[in-house]
Amino acid sequence: MSNHTIAPSPPSVRTRVRRVAELARYDRATVHAILDDAYLCHIAFHDALGSHCIPTACWRIGDHLYIHGSNGSRMLKRLFDGGDACVTVTHLDGLVLARSAFNHTMNYRSAMIYGQFEKVDDIALQHAAMEALMDKLAPGRQAQVRGGSDKEYAAITVLRIALDECVVKQRRGGPQDDEADLAQMVWTGELPFTHGRGPAIADVLCGSEAPDYVRAWPTESA
Amino acid sequence: MSNHTIAPSPPSVRTRVRRVAELARYDRATVHAILDDAYLCHIAFHDALGSHCIPTACWRIGDHLYIHGSNGSRMLKRLFDGGDACVTVTHLDGLVLARSAFNHTMNYRSAMIYGQFEKVDDIALQHAAMEALMDKLAPGRQAQVRGGSDKEYAAITVLRIALDECVVKQRRGGPQDDEADLAQMVWTGELPFTHGRGPAIADVLCGSEAPDYVRAWPTESA
Repeated sequence: MSNHTIAPSPPSVRTRVRRVAELARYDRATVHAILDDAYLCHIAFHDALGSHCIPTACWRIGDHLYIHGSNGSRMLKRLFDGGDACVTVTHLDGLVLARSAFNHTMNYRSAMIYGQFEKVDDIALQHAAMEALMDKLAPGRQAQVRGGSDKEYAAITVLRIALDECVVKQRRGGPQDDEADLAQMVWTGELPFTHGRGPAIADVLCGSEAPDYVRAWPTESA
Repeated sequence: MSNHTIAPSPPSVRTRVRRVAELARYDRATVHAILDDAYLCHIAFHDALGSHCIPTACWRIGDHLYIHGSNGSRMLKRLFDGGDACVTVTHLDGLVLARSAFNHTMNYRSAMIYGQFEKVDDIALQHAAMEALMDKLAPGRQAQVRGGSDKEYAAITVLRIALDECVVKQRRGGPQDDEADLAQMVWTGELPFTHGRGPAIADVLCGSEAPDYVRAWPTESA
């Protein structure tokens, strides 16, 4: 399996995986797939108070990952004020049970992005970005809701980070036992997690029929 | 709803939630519940290369959260070498669809811990910590597998961080629409995510019966 199937992004000193390096991938398609499966990321940054790890909604447009928040957010202010960031998305797919305690592991898909966020100042681009977020949450819903007012847009900041310096680390499959442990009589295998969707819950004040994206919700995998 | 129901941990300058402060909780029981629901956390720290956001397995014993890894891990070396850290666990529970674009939100449970990790040097405590991790993954399995050898223990580092400076931010329930938007005719409510378990997958080399914790796996919620 090649690590560089599509649009390779060569590892930097920060993204080169040193430990269990065979789990690393640097191709853009793999990064995109992991980001597109996620609704939120964790962002690491630091300021005078120390390091912070903040979860926030994220969505991808092309080769950038977008976030947004209130103008008052200390994280957003720090991020577009030149602070460096590391953004990570992780999906946990299963527990892997091996014959020896120390060979137990987990299956996961994780994407990390290093870099600096930039502010999306252009109002048309801000609108496009926020509408892309809505399209990700509920395709077609933008036309059904009351859109953002000028005042609402003025109160938020939209930021994006380029997917230039990024890396995927992922593991799948069963345990890798040491030859010497194969005689150990114990169940081995994978205990998978599922990432599912439960039945939609209409609000008590909701007087409208469920649109397609709500009716389809519980049947799609998340 | 009180923010201080059990063993209150007063907010610090880093943990006091400023934005949508009514979603914050500081009591220990709520922090514990969110950590115990998780198998991994994201850890923010910084070094000469900048900020990093690393996912890693975690487990709680009493009022500490534990992590472990290879002695060669740059994160572990930095963390027990005095680097400050922020550890975050987030569960995403649903999308919340409101009548206006900007009132859309998500339901989630997030716990953040600030502080410094300390190394668990005592070998008996290291053993106890690693066996607690196994108990979390698969209760009773420790007695069935080949336990860690002295050499294996010597190659790993176990760290823990006290749950002293921590905060929970969580949201549940349906949308909160503005009064002026209530006439907007559109479906509103919550699209829940489920955190489930799929059927156990026995390894091709597995010749043993499934123990209780494997047979019970798909029927429990994760």
